[in-house]
Amino acid sequence: MLRQTATTFAVETRGRGLVEFTRPVAAWLAQAAVETGLLTLFVRHTSASLLIQENADPDVRADLDRFFARLVPDGDPLFRHVDEGPDDMPSHVRSALTSVQLAIPVADGRLVLGTWQGIYLWEHRHRGHRREVAAHLLGE
Amino acid sequence: MLRQTATTFAVETRGRGLVEFTRPVAAWLAQAAVETGLLTLFVRHTSASLLIQENADPDVRADLDRFFARLVPDGDPLFRHVDEGPDDMPSHVRSALTSVQLAIPVADGRLVLGTWQGIYLWEHRHRGHRREVAAHLLGE
Amino acid sequence: MLRQTATTFAVETRGRGLVEFTRPVAAWLAQAAVETGLLTLFVRHTSASLLIQENADPDVRADLDRFFARLVPDGDPLFRHVDEGPDDMPSHVRSALTSVQLAIPVADGRLVLGTWQGIYLWEHRHRGHRREVAAHLLGE
Repeated sequence: MLRQTATTFAVETRGRGLVEFTRPVAAWLAQAAVETGLLTLFVRHTSASLLIQENADPDVRADLDRFFARLVPDGDPLFRHVDEGPDDMPSHVRSALTSVQLAIPVADGRLVLGTWQGIYLWEHRHRGHRREVAAHLLGE
Repeated sequence: MLRQTATTFAVETRGRGLVEFTRPVAAWLAQAAVETGLLTLFVRHTSASLLIQENADPDVRADLDRFFARLVPDGDPLFRHVDEGPDDMPSHVRSALTSVQLAIPVADGRLVLGTWQGIYLWEHRHRGHRREVAAHLLGE
Repeated sequence: MLRQTATTFAVETRGRGLVEFTRPVAAWLAQAAVETGLLTLFVRHTSASLLIQENADPDVRADLDRFFARLVPDGDPLFRHVDEGPDDMPSHVRSALTSVQLAIPVADGRLVLGTWQGIYLWEHRHRGHRREVAAHLLGE
């Protein structure tokens, strides 16, 4: 019979950049013993994102961060919301340009991630944070 | 036992900009009396988006809109699809750069939104519209 | 009673551009005979996206592709990850700027898509690929 379970993951960041957390998510899924289902992740912050990206070449993550730093420059005079510094409003824009949530089907007891896909939290602030990711799992 | 319910929210916009509608969503959730679950929102238009953003400082919304107006200029000569005016194709691009749907887990009877997170509909057209947001709630 | 079902769609692409696959998804939904529910789609690749866009005027798709080609130029010297050619890293960036998944409620036995909304796979590579989209359907 269909059932659900929920948890929260804490992801520690060391400042701007992508942090993979596929492993704890997969471990949680494994102990839930769901064969078919749907996993949803949601980051409870407005200056971090959730992202599926390539987990093979670390250059991909560095390039992503470089591209977004150029697209949404810190300290852009366009921004009025600067309460927390030059990387404050760019973080909100980067969040809007990406996503705060991910829904990933589960099949044969595993996330349907492709060969090169990993689950990442993208920290947009320069300072490290402890980020909370709420997780919901439905399945049987 | 797991159950589901669905509804549609109407969000009135006054032209380009973000309109918060966290409150009616939370009210609907409260009357559904779901303790743990998953809420999904989907906007039925191609020139509006759904977004989680900071709900404290209104400058954030203004900055977001200014940034996107610069990134995707109205009347850009690049665009051929101009049937409905200079803000027509930019609206579709803004929709592609953001998202039309949001999935938000429910825990302890409440959306797991962070302290500063609100649910917004982002109107991309200059003219106001009545936007329809389909909602699905699963839980128990 | 709530139940779930899952499948995989194969979407053939002929190189960069949007490929609509609303029809096979709707057909699968119809045979599943779900009246109310939630459909989730997830693309198992890091250089393609899923997107809801206008399905009336083909200029919209061409304009989207032109805009993204200008925003994320192929062969940008900023990028170090160039293993698979000048469109490799831009594909990952385009994936980050859009989304790999879509959740669409089902009501009255149909996807709640608006009049002009279609479901698209966006191929970001110049070469054609066979793309896999995992699908999960919950409902009753």
